[in-house]
Amino acid sequence: MQYLPKSLQRLISELNKLPSVGGKSAARLAYHLINHPQNADALAAAMRDAAGSLQQCKQCYFITDDQLCLICKSTNRDHSLVCIVEKPADLIAIEQAGVFRGFYHVLHQLWSPIRGQGLDSMHLAELIERSKKEEVTEVIIATGATVEGEATALYLARLLNDSGIRATRLAQGLPKGGDLEYLDDVTLSRALSGRTII
Amino acid sequence: MQYLPKSLQRLISELNKLPSVGGKSAARLAYHLINHPQNADALAAAMRDAAGSLQQCKQCYFITDDQLCLICKSTNRDHSLVCIVEKPADLIAIEQAGVFRGFYHVLHQLWSPIRGQGLDSMHLAELIERSKKEEVTEVIIATGATVEGEATALYLARLLNDSGIRATRLAQGLPKGGDLEYLDDVTLSRALSGRTII
Repeated sequence: MQYLPKSLQRLISELNKLPSVGGKSAARLAYHLINHPQNADALAAAMRDAAGSLQQCKQCYFITDDQLCLICKSTNRDHSLVCIVEKPADLIAIEQAGVFRGFYHVLHQLWSPIRGQGLDSMHLAELIERSKKEEVTEVIIATGATVEGEATALYLARLLNDSGIRATRLAQGLPKGGDLEYLDDVTLSRALSGRTII
Repeated sequence: MQYLPKSLQRLISELNKLPSVGGKSAARLAYHLINHPQNADALAAAMRDAAGSLQQCKQCYFITDDQLCLICKSTNRDHSLVCIVEKPADLIAIEQAGVFRGFYHVLHQLWSPIRGQGLDSMHLAELIERSKKEEVTEVIIATGATVEGEATALYLARLLNDSGIRATRLAQGLPKGGDLEYLDDVTLSRALSGRTII
């Protein structure tokens, strides 16, 4: 590294700060960017545009360049269903599955006292107010099956139930293609306890 | 994707053009950049600085912000050895191994007629002129053990030999920790044919 010009070292170090970009990847990305200045220019312009135009949707806190996001603006979705997700990428994953036609509420973080992440920024009062106003019949809690995802789901379920709103949780069990032989104990026990009649 | 604001779609698509950044990684990087505007700003500034300051070393074609790179400027290296590498990252790998104290020549590509990559941009005439002028006793050809790396090495060896310059090639054999049971035939046969007396 000490033989690299300072500006290249700095570029590698900035790329290295990105999630899941290690030292070697950062160097490879840096070489690509300096060898393809038109890509670097387009990327810089895209970052500038995004920073200048993007904000959180006033209703569901998804990413938008307007007051409301394109999902909240949709006229052909089911107002009685709201799905709570941790992050925008989770919302996109559900949209790509194409099986949910309700609305969303994006938390942007999970409840994690260890990481100093509380519940304050989750806009839960707004969620409850909106659920009552829109006569939502079910709030699906679609946080991940991690410790923090489960803890957040339990807290949210209690909060929603206390407000008289029905809360449900994503099913847990075998993933598609899952082989019982290689499944972990927790998944297997959840698949068993959540078994359904066929 | 169609629910994402245009500027975010564009940012994801620009990130997706980077090497080994797939669709999901591009989206994750984009969310990170819009959530951490200070990182995005620093990255944009680093790209701008790098683009404005970096060029190829006039002697070895490594990356530099000056006429000569920091290696070519070194006063305590062995002028009789030159190592030919494909790309800057390969040079860094050899430097990090810390076992070579000569100089370099960076090709920036391999000979690959299929990809339309010829020999013109490799600055080979300059390499030969420099080798003669600096009284280089050995040129180590350190291209990879790929089809293109081998083809380029064979061509370079002939060219150097024709000019009366001694060319050598990196040894091929067992990698560190290599288990014979899992080694491919080519590596095993090269390890055998290149065996050394112990």
